Amino acid sequence: MPGQSSKLQVAFQGEAGAFSEAAAVELLGEEIITVPRPTFDAAFQAIAKGAADVLVVPVENSLAGSVVRVYELLLESGLTITAETVVPIEPHLIGCPGASLREIRAVSSHPMALAQCERFFAAHPELKRVPAEDTAGSVREILERGDKAHAAIAGRRAAERYHGVILSESIQDNRENFTRFLLLRPNERSATVVPLATSSGRPTKMSVAMRIAHRPGALLASLEPFARWGINLLKIESRPIHGRPWVYQFFLDVEADAPDRLESALNDLQKVTEEVRVLGLYAAAQTGSPP
Amino acid sequence: MPGQSSKLQVAFQGEAGAFSEAAAVELLGEEIITVPRPTFDAAFQAIAKGAADVLVVPVENSLAGSVVRVYELLLESGLTITAETVVPIEPHLIGCPGASLREIRAVSSHPMALAQCERFFAAHPELKRVPAEDTAGSVREILERGDKAHAAIAGRRAAERYHGVILSESIQDNRENFTRFLLLRPNERSATVVPLATSSGRPTKMSVAMRIAHRPGALLASLEPFARWGINLLKIESRPIHGRPWVYQFFLDVEADAPDRLESALNDLQKVTEEVRVLGLYAAAQTGSPP
Repeated sequence: MPGQSSKLQVAFQGEAGAFSEAAAVELLGEEIITVPRPTFDAAFQAIAKGAADVLVVPVENSLAGSVVRVYELLLESGLTITAETVVPIEPHLIGCPGASLREIRAVSSHPMALAQCERFFAAHPELKRVPAEDTAGSVREILERGDKAHAAIAGRRAAERYHGVILSESIQDNRENFTRFLLLRPNERSATVVPLATSSGRPTKMSVAMRIAHRPGALLASLEPFARWGINLLKIESRPIHGRPWVYQFFLDVEADAPDRLESALNDLQKVTEEVRVLGLYAAAQTGSPP
Repeated sequence: MPGQSSKLQVAFQGEAGAFSEAAAVELLGEEIITVPRPTFDAAFQAIAKGAADVLVVPVENSLAGSVVRVYELLLESGLTITAETVVPIEPHLIGCPGASLREIRAVSSHPMALAQCERFFAAHPELKRVPAEDTAGSVREILERGDKAHAAIAGRRAAERYHGVILSESIQDNRENFTRFLLLRPNERSATVVPLATSSGRPTKMSVAMRIAHRPGALLASLEPFARWGINLLKIESRPIHGRPWVYQFFLDVEADAPDRLESALNDLQKVTEEVRVLGLYAAAQTGSPP
């Protein structure tokens, strides 16, 4: 039961050793109990069923864009965003202890990870690509089999978790590969302070979902409150709503130095939109500074 | 060489029988030469290298969101959007001739397709999931092997292309699975009229990429021209620009009854943004009507 254990139980999608697990540790430290689940739906259900206290999920990747299903589940679940972190996605070639790159003949990973390492495979035409359903899971499998001719592509945490060795570091084509993760918490637990591992800073970032009529000027009217209160727009995305072709859902991330400005903008916003929901108010991850 | 053949050569990502090929046929009819390529990069290169006349690419899926890499390549390539179509993504269980669902023991497909059929797999726990790099390619493989105990998940076109049989129809969890495809054409060929199979209608939809300074009110100022000219915003998405943390890229789809309004808005837009590029002006796909 959550709350009875002294350690925080943290759900995520993927197998032990996944990038989501690395993000959970980045946010909450190593002293957590991780609750891996095969799908995003199952990870959210872990909270609803009391199998976990909080949830860490990816929301966008610099190469692959937004994770639509997570936004849908976040809206349905009513969980609140408590913190964010941005994790560099560095896929390594991982093999069994004693293996060497020269011996490897086959490489397993999720097709998305395989596709992000095209240049590596072009330079090693002897390597057979073997698709798998999970990146960290592919490391677990090759270590279980102990086949020194078979490697997997995953993050450093998967190598550590399954006692594999890194045969080739950071083999992705594009180094600008980052994923933004959110820490989500049930609302009813809002009194419980979740201790963050990273110095969290002031809450200056707000994520908002709003529904807007599908007509000229409607979005403009809903963005005016932000401009009026000097609030910077970090991200905006529209999404059609199933079965309601003439209303649009928007997801926004905004940032303001002063939290009271966010409050003021929100008050104005409620007058000009069909529906507004604050998904969370939290400290922005440190990912660079202005020039 | 393009232009020398009487048939249009159409590049797409994926193997023969892919949903992209089905979209190409939907847009251009069956009388085309299809040019399949393993990656989006290679599909765009097919145009640059003269191996294809035009390109058909997915830009967004109702479940998975926008295809970020296609937007990047579209910007880099300078190709123009000529038409769009929205294709329902219906994954079927496809087996060898003579196979029956009762005999099947393993099912291959891309992990994304496997993940979209969780309920089917829950109802058939005897089926082993086998990840593959391509949905249509997984049908080709099982038909080549002729193994009646092995099926694949892909679209109807893949079943037809490789002479497989549909063992179970539309096995996805969520029926609201649609992908929007674009037809792209080199600019220098703008005099060449690409004959469309579907009745194309008037060009009322415009896709625009713009770069905006990252400061309060900047996006608002760039949306005002659209509201001023009564232009409806269909889609908006922000994307950070690698290496330029304080300028944002926005992708917009807008629609107006009168093309001259789009022109007027564009003129105004150029005064308030750092950079504007029209990606194409084309007829909107017919995907429902207002209530």
